[in-house]
Amino acid sequence: MNTFGNIFRLTSFGESHGEAIGGVIDGCPAGFLLDFNFIQQELDRRKPGQSDITTSRQESDRVEFLSGVYDGKTTGTPIGFIVRNSNQHSSDYDNLKDVFRPSHADYTYFQKYGHRDHRGGGRSSARETITRVVAGAIAKQILNKQGITINAYTSQVGTVRLETAYQELDFDKIEKTPVRCPDWEVAEKMIELIRQVRSEGDTIGGVVTCVCKNVPAGWGNPVFGRLNAALANAMMSINAAKGFDYGMGFDGVHHRGSEVNDLFYSDNQHIRTKTNYSGGIQGGISNGEDIYFRVAFKPVATLLREQPTIDIHGNETALRAKGRHDPCVLPRAVPVVEAMAAVTLLDYYLQNH
Amino acid sequence: MNTFGNIFRLTSFGESHGEAIGGVIDGCPAGFLLDFNFIQQELDRRKPGQSDITTSRQESDRVEFLSGVYDGKTTGTPIGFIVRNSNQHSSDYDNLKDVFRPSHADYTYFQKYGHRDHRGGGRSSARETITRVVAGAIAKQILNKQGITINAYTSQVGTVRLETAYQELDFDKIEKTPVRCPDWEVAEKMIELIRQVRSEGDTIGGVVTCVCKNVPAGWGNPVFGRLNAALANAMMSINAAKGFDYGMGFDGVHHRGSEVNDLFYSDNQHIRTKTNYSGGIQGGISNGEDIYFRVAFKPVATLLREQPTIDIHGNETALRAKGRHDPCVLPRAVPVVEAMAAVTLLDYYLQNH
Amino acid sequence: MNTFGNIFRLTSFGESHGEAIGGVIDGCPAGFLLDFNFIQQELDRRKPGQSDITTSRQESDRVEFLSGVYDGKTTGTPIGFIVRNSNQHSSDYDNLKDVFRPSHADYTYFQKYGHRDHRGGGRSSARETITRVVAGAIAKQILNKQGITINAYTSQVGTVRLETAYQELDFDKIEKTPVRCPDWEVAEKMIELIRQVRSEGDTIGGVVTCVCKNVPAGWGNPVFGRLNAALANAMMSINAAKGFDYGMGFDGVHHRGSEVNDLFYSDNQHIRTKTNYSGGIQGGISNGEDIYFRVAFKPVATLLREQPTIDIHGNETALRAKGRHDPCVLPRAVPVVEAMAAVTLLDYYLQNH
Amino acid sequence: MNTFGNIFRLTSFGESHGEAIGGVIDGCPAGFLLDFNFIQQELDRRKPGQSDITTSRQESDRVEFLSGVYDGKTTGTPIGFIVRNSNQHSSDYDNLKDVFRPSHADYTYFQKYGHRDHRGGGRSSARETITRVVAGAIAKQILNKQGITINAYTSQVGTVRLETAYQELDFDKIEKTPVRCPDWEVAEKMIELIRQVRSEGDTIGGVVTCVCKNVPAGWGNPVFGRLNAALANAMMSINAAKGFDYGMGFDGVHHRGSEVNDLFYSDNQHIRTKTNYSGGIQGGISNGEDIYFRVAFKPVATLLREQPTIDIHGNETALRAKGRHDPCVLPRAVPVVEAMAAVTLLDYYLQNH
Repeated sequence: MNTFGNIFRLTSFGESHGEAIGGVIDGCPAGFLLDFNFIQQELDRRKPGQSDITTSRQESDRVEFLSGVYDGKTTGTPIGFIVRNSNQHSSDYDNLKDVFRPSHADYTYFQKYGHRDHRGGGRSSARETITRVVAGAIAKQILNKQGITINAYTSQVGTVRLETAYQELDFDKIEKTPVRCPDWEVAEKMIELIRQVRSEGDTIGGVVTCVCKNVPAGWGNPVFGRLNAALANAMMSINAAKGFDYGMGFDGVHHRGSEVNDLFYSDNQHIRTKTNYSGGIQGGISNGEDIYFRVAFKPVATLLREQPTIDIHGNETALRAKGRHDPCVLPRAVPVVEAMAAVTLLDYYLQNH
Repeated sequence: MNTFGNIFRLTSFGESHGEAIGGVIDGCPAGFLLDFNFIQQELDRRKPGQSDITTSRQESDRVEFLSGVYDGKTTGTPIGFIVRNSNQHSSDYDNLKDVFRPSHADYTYFQKYGHRDHRGGGRSSARETITRVVAGAIAKQILNKQGITINAYTSQVGTVRLETAYQELDFDKIEKTPVRCPDWEVAEKMIELIRQVRSEGDTIGGVVTCVCKNVPAGWGNPVFGRLNAALANAMMSINAAKGFDYGMGFDGVHHRGSEVNDLFYSDNQHIRTKTNYSGGIQGGISNGEDIYFRVAFKPVATLLREQPTIDIHGNETALRAKGRHDPCVLPRAVPVVEAMAAVTLLDYYLQNH
Repeated sequence: MNTFGNIFRLTSFGESHGEAIGGVIDGCPAGFLLDFNFIQQELDRRKPGQSDITTSRQESDRVEFLSGVYDGKTTGTPIGFIVRNSNQHSSDYDNLKDVFRPSHADYTYFQKYGHRDHRGGGRSSARETITRVVAGAIAKQILNKQGITINAYTSQVGTVRLETAYQELDFDKIEKTPVRCPDWEVAEKMIELIRQVRSEGDTIGGVVTCVCKNVPAGWGNPVFGRLNAALANAMMSINAAKGFDYGMGFDGVHHRGSEVNDLFYSDNQHIRTKTNYSGGIQGGISNGEDIYFRVAFKPVATLLREQPTIDIHGNETALRAKGRHDPCVLPRAVPVVEAMAAVTLLDYYLQNH
Repeated sequence: MNTFGNIFRLTSFGESHGEAIGGVIDGCPAGFLLDFNFIQQELDRRKPGQSDITTSRQESDRVEFLSGVYDGKTTGTPIGFIVRNSNQHSSDYDNLKDVFRPSHADYTYFQKYGHRDHRGGGRSSARETITRVVAGAIAKQILNKQGITINAYTSQVGTVRLETAYQELDFDKIEKTPVRCPDWEVAEKMIELIRQVRSEGDTIGGVVTCVCKNVPAGWGNPVFGRLNAALANAMMSINAAKGFDYGMGFDGVHHRGSEVNDLFYSDNQHIRTKTNYSGGIQGGISNGEDIYFRVAFKPVATLLREQPTIDIHGNETALRAKGRHDPCVLPRAVPVVEAMAAVTLLDYYLQNH
């Protein structure tokens, strides 16, 4: 199953070291004037080699649109696109041919499919998220036109945790730190930690927080199309994601109902809530307040130091990745989280319009 | 959207104070001899009034099967079933007719559908989970025959948290405490806290942990049908769920890759991992290790003390629920979590067989 | 797969001699005031025993709604409904227990599911169409409010064929003949033929024609959601249907393009076509002209005379149905064709609104 | 909706005069060694310019596979592919920019999407079937390995109709006539008629018959996944298709039940039917006999002579296509019918294996 969404649907294909990564976006509304520069910018946010705390691997991911656009506008027919894999040093991976890398998908793909494309993770590579970012960049443009904004940021790296509530953050600062944390003091500590971890040939996990503003009340389809369930599904489909929560989430379960019930008030004819422990979703349907959620990411499994493992014959061996990997997935996960949020929300928007 | 699953599909209907709650199970394998007592037992685990820490409301939920079963065996045709709502004191809810209860789905349903069935939450009531438990009880039986077991338990209530790893727990003890926590010392504290909270007319949240054993390697469909994403979607579709994580989850993100990579070893021809931070799923596909995950639940929104709110005209008012509600959703959420896990896993089983 | 539709979705269950036939309608718009008498009338059009040319079996099919309706209006939540099977003389079918009836689904169900409910065809019985008629009666009401009308009629029985174009027929006459043919002269011949066939213990096939008026231009989703393909799928899902065509259909293939191209003209700002060989659909999308199509039905397989056959052990035997079967499926197929057309069209309406 | 299938899923994109036509095949079994020459041969059967009775337009459609294949074998991951549009004389179509061609999709696309890519029909062009032929060529290979064969042929052109039953035809002769009719005498007459029609600047319709052998009993999912309904849906999704029937079809409705009931017999432990009016499908499930069906195609709408029409402003005008169009769609429809049959059948095969 490589299709996401119901009305706005992304179908994705491509391995990291095959000819190309690509996708088909079906159900995009007709007549929308696309900003192609914005799409490329979003792709650039995702690409490796942006700073010294991400991988130094250089990838120039240029998207080529093959259909569904005419005179710069969407036509309502499916949008096919590809991004060529320019950097196919497949021989780099010859040593991995028969080896299962720990905490990668090597073993499970092998079990499921019987054989696998071992080069750079094949289909399980993070390069697959390219198609999500392209679709997300289109979805964002359409949502933005409705006033909806989506901003994600790194809120935790290892034990360094941003404690400030999102309401007090300046989202314009997010892109100005390489770790994509809008509090520069905390960002500094995160960067320091990532450099330390990198110097040890190790990796570290963290949390991305995402905030969606101006989503109107009424989006979400109980009981099996709840907006929160759709977001959970979207986020857990991202490589390395280990958890999702929204509103009060895991950290709020110790509260009493009387503390976290969001009381209503009438604000100049609009019904609002005084607090937002619900995270903008009640009974699976948006209530007009900000939607905010968190996604936990595990440390990258590829280490720049030797690890013991076994090969497909069960023999013990060891492996050590070559020097071009992320010590921390968080900075590059931020645009992917935003993209999946955008794709998910647009689907509900189109159900209502 | 009231249908869950791809091959084994549950379609659910019914409001808490309508004629009946019911469902249709499509795609159930033919020729399976059903244990109807087991189905009823599972329903009894979900029903209110089981102990003094759950609601004292008595519901005798008897399931009636209408199709798809012949001579005690499934026929492969859709299984229709209903549970009559015996306890329809609709007039109890007259005072709620025009009022939005805080942190319920009243306001969002009203926004989405324009009008609503205000009686007892209507479709957003937890009674809707009855159909899930029925489907889950069937799914469990089929999975059990394959050796797969699913056990959930209450691992946190408010600040009382069970710290013991699941491997050291005796799951046979789960059902022996009303709070469904297999560590009796911790259970005692949970019960105490719930009683305290109840005495204050308040409610409290918590966490359910679920463990699925003997799931074979190879289940899961990257990239948009990952087993973890399907489980997240399933769990977040349950009333009051605010978060999902699996394996190391949120609590493990501070670890380094070198600490949490699950190293492979060969155990008498079987490939196993020495640790299981991955939670039994790698690259979205099961790896044969135990699958374990957590679901966070918020405190029940219905309080037994007065709360201020507004009505549909925006006027300020107050409400106070009558005395038959759960102070803590956790004990009754346990069988629902198990049911949704069973339904989700069976879907993948059927894809592979 | 017992679910039909994408947005307006019918999930159906029930065997002819089980407890009940029923269904769940999901995605019905909220706030629509239903005419329950109309729903029952539509069911009555489908039921056996309406005249001497249909089966004399009496079935009083009363539909009970269980959810999704409040104060007579749809609430937007799923509409569950059941029709009890009052007439369960299962013992009538004991002689069929191990026998494959020719040209029924007995053998194929047995092959697929391993065992079967032999009573009256079980799930393959025409009683299953009850749920379609209920869903169709709801869909019709919603479409009618948009000015869309759907009329089907018997256009052929055996060799007796109504040659008059639909434009020249008075649809008000359809229900006034038991064979549901609006041309009384032709109807007379059809009835005569059916009586003759019946007297011989035999059965006869025919064709239903259906006309949908006032469908706006723009419905249909190329390339795999073409409106004509959806109608074909809907019609071929009806018991005993053997063919579908629309517009010029099979009978028009001998024409030249210059004869059957529908030339456009401008009618007071509206773009219309002078002819309608296209059948109201071009490129899979409605063009605003009448949509008309035909459905071919084979003769009923149940004969009132002896037929040789074999049993599940491969032994030769013979069978002879007891005296309560339709000699001709056409009259009772008419409301089912209309219902499936209504359900299909409503799905596209909801995609556009 | 540009996705076809449930398990083996084709998602298609591309306009006739855009950059490329392409698709994604998801759900293809892993480890299958593909014959790429066969895929290209199938594409060549579809391409224009094969003989003097098809269009003289030369298209060299070379398929490029981008993913999902490694070492010549399928990997189980999605197969992305593109076919570049080499022949983009878009300026040829400048005169069509504001004109609605009669009986094309110009007007309906304009109504639905608000604007359109007018070049060569855009998405509604027959070039879109390229992706179906690629997917079909893969499906055929997998089915062939199971012994299943699929053969389509032209059985009617205008009034020239092949009356011989398919059982008496030699399918090896199909490809040896440019009209793809295996009876050379009839083929001669068809070709003569097509030449005549072409000389008049006109076009002509016809019928394709398709025969699927060795499909095992048990494929098909009542009631809304009937194999016949899936085939109808597949065939009616092809450009210019106006009708579908199977088994006795429209031509058999005049028969009596006693004439067309397929009597069972036991053939050396196998249960067979003496006749096959059912067309190999009973109750929506294959019964092991040959599956055969017909597809009616209208005459090509593009004429090589002047036709009156109107433009998007409602003004009267006239148009005349330039000289590179098919006078008869049938010969090139044959491989497309086979491809869609293969894709449909493979989906059911994978459900059962």
